Amino acid sequence: MKLASLKSGRDGHLVVVSKDLTRYSDASHIAPTLQAALDDWKVMAPKLQSLAQEIEVGSVPTERFHEHDCASPLPRAYQWADGSAYINHVELVRKARGAEVPESFYSDPLMYQGVSGSTLGPRDPIPLGDTAWGCDMEAEVCVITDDVPMGVSASDAADHIQLILICNDVSLRGLIPAELAKGFGFFQSKPPCAFSPVAVTPDELGDAWQDTLIHLPMHVDYRGEAFGRAEAGVDATFNMAQLVAHAAKTRPLVAGSIIGSGTVSNKGADGGAGKPVAEGGLGYSCIAEIRMIEKIASGEFKTPFMDIGDTVRIEMLDKSGHSIFGAIEQEVVSV
Amino acid sequence: MKLASLKSGRDGHLVVVSKDLTRYSDASHIAPTLQAALDDWKVMAPKLQSLAQEIEVGSVPTERFHEHDCASPLPRAYQWADGSAYINHVELVRKARGAEVPESFYSDPLMYQGVSGSTLGPRDPIPLGDTAWGCDMEAEVCVITDDVPMGVSASDAADHIQLILICNDVSLRGLIPAELAKGFGFFQSKPPCAFSPVAVTPDELGDAWQDTLIHLPMHVDYRGEAFGRAEAGVDATFNMAQLVAHAAKTRPLVAGSIIGSGTVSNKGADGGAGKPVAEGGLGYSCIAEIRMIEKIASGEFKTPFMDIGDTVRIEMLDKSGHSIFGAIEQEVVSV
Repeated sequence: MKLASLKSGRDGHLVVVSKDLTRYSDASHIAPTLQAALDDWKVMAPKLQSLAQEIEVGSVPTERFHEHDCASPLPRAYQWADGSAYINHVELVRKARGAEVPESFYSDPLMYQGVSGSTLGPRDPIPLGDTAWGCDMEAEVCVITDDVPMGVSASDAADHIQLILICNDVSLRGLIPAELAKGFGFFQSKPPCAFSPVAVTPDELGDAWQDTLIHLPMHVDYRGEAFGRAEAGVDATFNMAQLVAHAAKTRPLVAGSIIGSGTVSNKGADGGAGKPVAEGGLGYSCIAEIRMIEKIASGEFKTPFMDIGDTVRIEMLDKSGHSIFGAIEQEVVSV
Repeated sequence: MKLASLKSGRDGHLVVVSKDLTRYSDASHIAPTLQAALDDWKVMAPKLQSLAQEIEVGSVPTERFHEHDCASPLPRAYQWADGSAYINHVELVRKARGAEVPESFYSDPLMYQGVSGSTLGPRDPIPLGDTAWGCDMEAEVCVITDDVPMGVSASDAADHIQLILICNDVSLRGLIPAELAKGFGFFQSKPPCAFSPVAVTPDELGDAWQDTLIHLPMHVDYRGEAFGRAEAGVDATFNMAQLVAHAAKTRPLVAGSIIGSGTVSNKGADGGAGKPVAEGGLGYSCIAEIRMIEKIASGEFKTPFMDIGDTVRIEMLDKSGHSIFGAIEQEVVSV
């Protein structure tokens, strides 16, 4: 099934959306919000699944679904922990500044905790205080868990993944170096993320969901042109279940925790840095990567970060070309 | 007024507590949970204040208040951002390893984002997976905000501080070095915090609340003995309003965000490292500090971190010796 939160109050209004994202049916008689459904998922999920089936066969009233009416599926979430499954992204960043990737990064995931109480809807603008902050997008795969016990194993963690979605993890690259130099990780450099219009249960992905990874490309269009088509099932050093287990090592994860994959990033066909889409490559899921490749190749950064008015579109299509999660489509605005 | 969440479901049950912490009255006819009250604070606060006055004059039914029935005031919170107002703590840690404190630390607060979806009640045990993780307490002052706009000034931020409480920011010192070396900040090394039984409005602190700092000592007893009496109004490089403004630079803070002061820490009377309480000093709000002082003085750490069965009690008393927030009292248990 596919679930969305239509904009309403602080937590949105839960609806079940048709597989083709054209129609929805109100689900508030089952649970008023997605968080409320996740709080009692074992009871709520079968009821929501029934409604989803009724929508497909046309036995319940539906209304036209508009992605721009959506808040993030969890407009306020209790936990947003973002990993770095695709180490190629980290390798590029390090290579550009002549630093090695520590061996431990291949067995011990990088993870930071980001803002979860404020999120952006999939069509909300990205508010930017200063273009010198170096605004960038990061296209990622995310999962939403039910209650996960502290110390869960990676194999058990897979069973706690209840919903899957994608996000734009907005990053302020200009604020990152000074912030990381302080040693406490990202804070101001990671403002609210935007999440896709719908979150889906794993069965909606069919064969594309294997080993808790989505084996499909992440479509990123920047300023109206194809920018990234990286394969989310390729070059992942960690899968989503491993990231959930990492997050839960010393704490339980409360129902509704969102765990992210980090920027989806592939190596090139030759094992080196990937090429831009225009040159036949799979491109990039963030601007920082193409800048790193420019820096490694020519000694200088060429592509600027996002300016006021720039747009990004992030989407994932199934093998028939249909949108799975709906599209994140955002414009940078000055605040 | 003083507010508490009695243990019930995921979010507790909101009650107003008498100033002397002996009695409470159910507030669920006003708002079922503290989060619900904060979501509409301008409307809810006056109603809760009225109830608080009725409790003091005895015009409403009350029941006996037991601190051990409490969850954290916000059992699930959307944001927990912890600063380092007391740079003495940072200076000690750095001095012990022969590192300088960067000049920027005195103007740009250190802040990390911690787990907020899971918290510990004030009398809940501290679950520890492995004593080698180096379990430590950190006694801190915290504030709860209403909705704070992105980019708020420090002076305006002060008006968004609606409630004050204290916490035990549990830290796993053994996991910190490897985690900070990865560059993404704390994650597994900062498991859930315990918060005090009640959160209070600033007026409850009277003259002790000045310039958004509490001018009273933080009482920390470890294994039944006085361990820390550091003055929370002294040696604070940043006040709470400045920390709120720092947190909100690139994001709005959602109502119910909790911002922490970092470990309360004073210099000694001579401007050097503070002495233990037993030697007439103000002691420490965490074990790491006494270890750092041992290391600086003798070249080796002597005091071990918390073992299974060890207890910590954290409390703040007003000038008459009455508990303001109730006591956090926890025992480390093996899980």
